[in-house]
Amino acid sequence: MTRAMNFNAGPAALPLAALERAREELLDFEGSGMSVMEHSHRGKVYEKVHNEALALVAELLGVKADEYDVLFLQGGASMAFATIPMNFFEHGKTADYVVTGAWGEKAVSEARVVGTLQGGRVNVSASATTAVPKQDDLRITDGAAYLHCTSNETIHGVEYALDPSTPFPTTKSPLFCDMSSDILGRKIDASKFDLIYAGAQKNIGPSGVTIFVLKKEMVARGRKDIPVIFQFRTHAESQSLYNTPPTFGIYLIRNTLTWMKAEGGVAAMETRNKKKAGAIYEAIDGSGGFYKCPVEKASRSIMNVVWRLPTPELEDEFVKAATKERMIGLKGHRSVGGIRASLYNAVEPAWCDALATFMKEFAKKKG
Amino acid sequence: MTRAMNFNAGPAALPLAALERAREELLDFEGSGMSVMEHSHRGKVYEKVHNEALALVAELLGVKADEYDVLFLQGGASMAFATIPMNFFEHGKTADYVVTGAWGEKAVSEARVVGTLQGGRVNVSASATTAVPKQDDLRITDGAAYLHCTSNETIHGVEYALDPSTPFPTTKSPLFCDMSSDILGRKIDASKFDLIYAGAQKNIGPSGVTIFVLKKEMVARGRKDIPVIFQFRTHAESQSLYNTPPTFGIYLIRNTLTWMKAEGGVAAMETRNKKKAGAIYEAIDGSGGFYKCPVEKASRSIMNVVWRLPTPELEDEFVKAATKERMIGLKGHRSVGGIRASLYNAVEPAWCDALATFMKEFAKKKG
Repeated sequence: MTRAMNFNAGPAALPLAALERAREELLDFEGSGMSVMEHSHRGKVYEKVHNEALALVAELLGVKADEYDVLFLQGGASMAFATIPMNFFEHGKTADYVVTGAWGEKAVSEARVVGTLQGGRVNVSASATTAVPKQDDLRITDGAAYLHCTSNETIHGVEYALDPSTPFPTTKSPLFCDMSSDILGRKIDASKFDLIYAGAQKNIGPSGVTIFVLKKEMVARGRKDIPVIFQFRTHAESQSLYNTPPTFGIYLIRNTLTWMKAEGGVAAMETRNKKKAGAIYEAIDGSGGFYKCPVEKASRSIMNVVWRLPTPELEDEFVKAATKERMIGLKGHRSVGGIRASLYNAVEPAWCDALATFMKEFAKKKG
Repeated sequence: MTRAMNFNAGPAALPLAALERAREELLDFEGSGMSVMEHSHRGKVYEKVHNEALALVAELLGVKADEYDVLFLQGGASMAFATIPMNFFEHGKTADYVVTGAWGEKAVSEARVVGTLQGGRVNVSASATTAVPKQDDLRITDGAAYLHCTSNETIHGVEYALDPSTPFPTTKSPLFCDMSSDILGRKIDASKFDLIYAGAQKNIGPSGVTIFVLKKEMVARGRKDIPVIFQFRTHAESQSLYNTPPTFGIYLIRNTLTWMKAEGGVAAMETRNKKKAGAIYEAIDGSGGFYKCPVEKASRSIMNVVWRLPTPELEDEFVKAATKERMIGLKGHRSVGGIRASLYNAVEPAWCDALATFMKEFAKKKG
């Protein structure tokens, strides 16, 4: 079997080694005569996997165990858009949201609903979709409950802090960040953030697990008058075993992060990802205008490269021809159209080279 | 490899055929050169699996597609304890809860929190843990938002409606039921229920997927002023694709229910499960009082059989000796102690016979 060249935006390509390991032990995990997914989440066999996965997230992200809690939850970033304000909004408080694409907008929308229910106001500090805003342009609230940003916008291909001219926002309030699509895809200084969250289904594992990494003081600060299941303290106090976790997803995160560590960790991923994205951006910028990336250079994502062709018809043709070459998942998000190549950690450099070559040939034929 | 005899309460044994199918196609799903978990949740390959799984739930449960919506959500029953009152509590309304064990108690507890936040009151219609209450003993509220019950209490081993003398509660209000641990384990008249929900990790698949089956009129009735992610209509309108679903878990549900259907569906499961449980209850009742089941006969569960030995020390000894025979997961829930054998659909009849034999021999030696 030849692997397809998988550029899906998420669920996305997983490391072959992580999948092979899963296949190898799918029916008999460590000689137990059971699949890992048939083990009790409170048994020793699963517990070891669970704790290994939690520790790998902390280690690879570079946070200290005595300062941060790592949680494995469910519901994806879409649920976090609601549970974060539920935990941290208080009457009379405002939360700042810096919007750089569709996911930031969704986060604002859910926070507004929570604000109406619980008391609390949303301030949109800035809103853009082709570049991250400059610090000077942010409308920041004194004493905000938190400031929320999106490190990489999966649909719009806009990413923070890859270029020195586009740093993450700074604020005196706690800094929260949705890192769903670039967590562990490049080095960041995690200690600057008070709360980081990410759906697993891009860089870390399959869909169905959401990772939270938050300072212990934020855990303590969360509201206590909301349902227990939505309080982050519930899960921090029980090592994410308050209720049954998605055990097989967490097991696959363990496999994926073990692979990542063996490959050289986040630093190696960043080098690899920059090269991969570089090949695609070069094909775009070298096409004499046949391909156009709408994102300003300093904000261009290394995880989701988006571009347009001269017409929607040519874009359809491009996707069809690429699919024939077994390049999968290149259609842009239905809300914005165009083309998108997602280049998460498990996407092979050779696939990106093949895509860049294909782009050049397609442009030559049709340009 | 010999399979362990897995009596875990959940995550639990899965059908070997479902696991073997997963292993067979783990790296290359239907010739796509990708694992099913690497496919986009919006692509045709996954969509077929998703729709097949939804249709199998409806078919096996016996609900009509024009009357009920089937949803695949996340968070388990523990999250449903909060989202159900969030959707259906209104100011001034009361919801009735019939408690027959620990899970019903948790549902009450979360509903009370939601009631305080949103307006709404919880009425405990009855509370028991060794038998389901009689209809005449229920304190039922006129015009309640709904009545909530738990068809089978996983920890306490108390199940409704296996005996004609212990029918489900009846009420003029909408009838809601947590069926986490016995859904599709036996025939029920699903049309009596307005909302059914269940964590998948017992009878249906791995952990990480929650199934909701609710009448379309309940979907329409849900509150619109709560976060979009928690509104059941959001997921009903998008065929559970509003946000990224736990695709691999849903795929395994597909495999599990396909096996179940091939084995003869729910009727065959019920026959099998009654025989399995019968063998264990016979070993208990025939032990001359060495083993004692605290549950009244008419309320005894066919999914979770619980019993005590004369002393906690003997119980420890029992579990250790059983584990040596590769009988796994027999320790009772930490909150109640004792012994518990969970006998979900995928638990082999031969394992139950082996357990019954083991019980008789243990009683002979130690009794």
